[in-house]
Amino acid sequence: MKLDHIGIAVDDLEAARKLYGELLGMAVGPVEELAERKLRISFVDLGAGGAGIELLAPTDPDSPVGKFLASKGPGVQHLAYQVEDIAASLAALKAAGVKLVDEVARPGAHGCLVAFLHPKATGGVLTELVQHTH
Amino acid sequence: MKLDHIGIAVDDLEAARKLYGELLGMAVGPVEELAERKLRISFVDLGAGGAGIELLAPTDPDSPVGKFLASKGPGVQHLAYQVEDIAASLAALKAAGVKLVDEVARPGAHGCLVAFLHPKATGGVLTELVQHTH
Repeated sequence: MKLDHIGIAVDDLEAARKLYGELLGMAVGPVEELAERKLRISFVDLGAGGAGIELLAPTDPDSPVGKFLASKGPGVQHLAYQVEDIAASLAALKAAGVKLVDEVARPGAHGCLVAFLHPKATGGVLTELVQHTH
Repeated sequence: MKLDHIGIAVDDLEAARKLYGELLGMAVGPVEELAERKLRISFVDLGAGGAGIELLAPTDPDSPVGKFLASKGPGVQHLAYQVEDIAASLAALKAAGVKLVDEVARPGAHGCLVAFLHPKATGGVLTELVQHTH
């Protein structure tokens, strides 16, 4: 298991892209529209084995990230780890008594499979597993 | 600039070490006492270019991490990036109008130099710069 990305909820995507790109000097990717997740996102390369920041700007206040922003303000919303076999990882975690949000992985961005663990089981940190399929 | 570590505030260091080590399968280092920072910490290897998680357990509720836990509960407390020349990075950020907590770098763990940027300047994410000196 290794870090895939840090999901950061932002209320101003252009300001966040300027912060991580121009001010902190990281490589910032293009803005992508994820209509079904009600998000505009942009990926920041962290220079650490392919890991990155996923900047998350909600397009609807009633979406998960929109609700996070409204209740907690901008900041780190989740941490995502890359796994080889997400079904096997979920089965092992469930067997160990870890509470899951998604018992079965579902399609994520870029053809990935993703599943969330429950923050109550992970010390308050919303935790995502990602299996890259390419 | 590349990811150095993700600082996660925890209220139960042993439970967090078990979560990241036994349940999520990452390499977890020993517990270290940082008396002057009023912390017990443990480092988790993220498998991403040397980057890790710093698990932060306060030994005093009146410390910065103790106050964070009391007000926000356990979760991601800061993100830290490695820089080559922390004085030059701080000067450039200040010149660009970024609000700093530490205008001059100070000694951190393991002989590093560290400085924090103000979360108001970084989209709500407490951001640390780290210069490794070895």
